Amino acid sequence: MKYCSHCGAEVEVRVPEGDNRPRHVCIICSTVHYQNPKIVVGCIPVWEQQILLCRRAIEPRYGLWTVPAGFMENGETSQQGAARETLEEACARVEVEGLYTLFNLPHINQVYLLFRSRLLDLDFAAGEESLEVKLFDEQEIPWEKLAFPVIKESLRLYYADRETGKYPLRSGTIIRAAGSARSYRIILDPS
Amino acid sequence: MKYCSHCGAEVEVRVPEGDNRPRHVCIICSTVHYQNPKIVVGCIPVWEQQILLCRRAIEPRYGLWTVPAGFMENGETSQQGAARETLEEACARVEVEGLYTLFNLPHINQVYLLFRSRLLDLDFAAGEESLEVKLFDEQEIPWEKLAFPVIKESLRLYYADRETGKYPLRSGTIIRAAGSARSYRIILDPS
Repeated sequence: MKYCSHCGAEVEVRVPEGDNRPRHVCIICSTVHYQNPKIVVGCIPVWEQQILLCRRAIEPRYGLWTVPAGFMENGETSQQGAARETLEEACARVEVEGLYTLFNLPHINQVYLLFRSRLLDLDFAAGEESLEVKLFDEQEIPWEKLAFPVIKESLRLYYADRETGKYPLRSGTIIRAAGSARSYRIILDPS
Repeated sequence: MKYCSHCGAEVEVRVPEGDNRPRHVCIICSTVHYQNPKIVVGCIPVWEQQILLCRRAIEPRYGLWTVPAGFMENGETSQQGAARETLEEACARVEVEGLYTLFNLPHINQVYLLFRSRLLDLDFAAGEESLEVKLFDEQEIPWEKLAFPVIKESLRLYYADRETGKYPLRSGTIIRAAGSARSYRIILDPS
């Protein structure tokens, strides 16, 4: 951020009065431009014993598999956002059930909210951001070709909980290891 | 938003190619400026049978009572944010426990995440944004002087669940009724 979106003047980085951390502040109109984490909402779409995954047609992680998920939009609920992403990426209709995982990704300022959901019919297809969309049995999940650690961990937890048939909220934090772009540590909160 | 924060030129509102909703787009450098919901994180700080509330020293809802909560910051986890807000507003140290309520507030583009938490000591005090900070027994809660519907509903749920000693995640949506700034409808998700 270099310019004030309100008046067009330059911004500087300083701690505003009464605040305790540096912000982008306009040098003319003094508007403070806050930057906050974004919410990624998504579904784990289930059909009988299978889960619907999408193969990404966009960067990052082009060609790898994920659950339907994306940035929550203004004016919607997190559940509506999760259903919308599932419709956009997998052309699939779901009944969104309970929140299943909450993961903090502080290195990229994101919070993931993934909901269990029930696929309503088998009339799905690849949306614009997907190369293909497919139902997987547990033993078919492409564990080494999943796009993001948060997805891999959420699916791992899901299959562990499926053994008991109970799905309490699972939460935790994904930490990117220093010095490497592709090495992560996962800390689960006590449940 | 009137100007591009990247290059300082004017922005227009249009649907970018490959997108499906209007965004602020720079007329010169074509940067798309997305606007997304913000996360409010907070604690329900518990000491034995009592809950710690803060009386607001800032607008909106100056003088009314709330739990410690505020906008989540970049670089922190939601639990760290909840603990930070509790320290800033109530000068209180807590052990953050499980996520207890998730409320969508789509009319103001916010998602509330309130965590149960255990107050670690009685050494609390009013922070800069609070007029006073006080422990309340259930029968002392100032129900008619709570600052926000999301807080009132979260405390109502908390006391109902306390009867059973179990605190599953409670989630729902607060909808502002048309035509009135201060009338709300609360829709709870099935649990």
